[in-house]
Amino acid sequence: MEPVDLWTSGLPAQLRAHGPRVEPHDGVECLLVEDTVVRRFPPVAKAAGPADAADEKTLMRGASDPAGRLRDLDTDGVWGEVIYPNLAFFCCFHIRSPELQIETARLYNEWVAEQFIAASERFAPVAVLPVNDIAAAVKELWRAARRGFRGAMLPAHMDLRPYNDPAYDPLWAAAEELGVPLTFHAGTGRTQTPAHGPGGAVINYVVTVAGPMETVAYLCSSGVLERHPKLRVVMVECGSGWLAWVLHAMDDAYREHHVFVRPKLALLPSEYFRRQGAVTFQRDPVGLANLPFTGDRSLMWGSDYPHPEGTWPHSQEVLARQLEGLPESTIDRIVTWNAAELYRFRLPTDAA
Amino acid sequence: MEPVDLWTSGLPAQLRAHGPRVEPHDGVECLLVEDTVVRRFPPVAKAAGPADAADEKTLMRGASDPAGRLRDLDTDGVWGEVIYPNLAFFCCFHIRSPELQIETARLYNEWVAEQFIAASERFAPVAVLPVNDIAAAVKELWRAARRGFRGAMLPAHMDLRPYNDPAYDPLWAAAEELGVPLTFHAGTGRTQTPAHGPGGAVINYVVTVAGPMETVAYLCSSGVLERHPKLRVVMVECGSGWLAWVLHAMDDAYREHHVFVRPKLALLPSEYFRRQGAVTFQRDPVGLANLPFTGDRSLMWGSDYPHPEGTWPHSQEVLARQLEGLPESTIDRIVTWNAAELYRFRLPTDAA
Repeated sequence: MEPVDLWTSGLPAQLRAHGPRVEPHDGVECLLVEDTVVRRFPPVAKAAGPADAADEKTLMRGASDPAGRLRDLDTDGVWGEVIYPNLAFFCCFHIRSPELQIETARLYNEWVAEQFIAASERFAPVAVLPVNDIAAAVKELWRAARRGFRGAMLPAHMDLRPYNDPAYDPLWAAAEELGVPLTFHAGTGRTQTPAHGPGGAVINYVVTVAGPMETVAYLCSSGVLERHPKLRVVMVECGSGWLAWVLHAMDDAYREHHVFVRPKLALLPSEYFRRQGAVTFQRDPVGLANLPFTGDRSLMWGSDYPHPEGTWPHSQEVLARQLEGLPESTIDRIVTWNAAELYRFRLPTDAA
Repeated sequence: MEPVDLWTSGLPAQLRAHGPRVEPHDGVECLLVEDTVVRRFPPVAKAAGPADAADEKTLMRGASDPAGRLRDLDTDGVWGEVIYPNLAFFCCFHIRSPELQIETARLYNEWVAEQFIAASERFAPVAVLPVNDIAAAVKELWRAARRGFRGAMLPAHMDLRPYNDPAYDPLWAAAEELGVPLTFHAGTGRTQTPAHGPGGAVINYVVTVAGPMETVAYLCSSGVLERHPKLRVVMVECGSGWLAWVLHAMDDAYREHHVFVRPKLALLPSEYFRRQGAVTFQRDPVGLANLPFTGDRSLMWGSDYPHPEGTWPHSQEVLARQLEGLPESTIDRIVTWNAAELYRFRLPTDAA
């Protein structure tokens, strides 16, 4: 959770007026950028009752404080974490001005590097990487890698210039060369609330969380992963239960509609994802049941800490329940080694 | 496959000028409606080579001819089929004029009733049911049921008035009262080609085929299926491998985001689908592996006859391969009884 004045006090003077700010709007705290509300923060209704799980979560201290965060991780039995932004998550990819966008991202990246990269190797924050201006994104990716970032975050969707556009090739090449995995977090690059009215919360969850299915199809079938065999990509907080079907559906389309398929690939689309891709999940019995289709190298567990719907502080129980019966080697892959290898976490010896 | 002059010769004179027509456009045969191209029919490239599976399929005789179609079904060991339109599929839901839209649908419905309902009980064509004008849709549904239709087809997506809008209640009530299942075919109500360029064919397949995931979320979480407990809904040609995850994701959202969930439901969202919903698939090992999550009453097999990517004339082999190892009772549900009960097929005694 960034300080609310990160951009109002940190942006260059000529960009500050339209940069991100948090202020009341129609009586509700709102995040604005370029004078547009991009996120509302209504107070969570206390009417939800005393059993509301959020009560317990107010104990979490680590949102912005590295020491508190490490204590929270220890409490939960978690060694390392990949950290995503909060305000920057909701505003960066909405910004239209290329200059304001990249400066907004840089300011976040600098703050999180100073706050978390400097504090402990157990933190691997991702650099926010807007890609409207691809040359600027490549430059920021190089800077971020030198600054110690072990991952970068692109919008999951780029509807105005989708990820099969060859224009992104310099970016894929840079990530490959630097060994920095590119992550695509559910709910970025498109509205998170396409549905309104009855059932909206459930509909929006399904639509948003399933969004990276499409990103997988773009990256696998367009040849991006074939042309950049060392590029690693991660779909984040999207669940894992749809992955087996998407891998099957891509291959089915590739074979059955071969007359229309361009480019022809050396492998099937699914094979590129199994080789270079992963998805993250919290609680997903369906994804775990489908390991025979996906393999255990494509799944990584995450707690979604510090969100109330996450598994903190019960991650061990949640994991024990859902992983019961799986081989130890599979469990090690999913909760430890896939992430440790990808994001270069150094584990304490006794965990190795 | 409707006669190409169905609407140019059949529509009332005052509607005919803007009704559906097939004519060359920029050198390619096209389907136009309201003077807009809604579908291009480029000749399938012969360059695809002699191994092109389409060659074998040219033997199929049944596209418009009931007798030929019955022979094709017999060849394939299939007793009955639910028939979807071809030209009407691609044009009806695009029409903006409510009067032209419902007349276009009625004309198709009349043609398919005369051609197929009259010919054999083994054919259960669905009535095309545009829902821009809900009162007109209710009227057409009543007419169709009296005319012998055992199913009706709505667009899978209604982005301008989604299916959680209470305005649809008279339509849900009519379908429930008439005992006519409502079907939502992948690829209707939205473009089938959102992606262009490299990988487009694969991306568009995944996005289009996964579209009904969203429809499931709308119908289950908004209370439609709760308020209409005898309403039956079917997602068509969408595969089945995503269903287990969607059922899980809806319930997860319902529980974890309960503060934001409206309406509260008596059951979990997934339970309504298990009770009232189904999906159809051709080849889907993932969906079959996930039967423990979905139950065997939510899956129905279909051949996609007469499409080249369908399983005709090898349906028995395709089924034997993918159903191997499943209990007989499950197989009976998926290939016979779910569809037979829902669409009221009377099976020959020796198949019962």
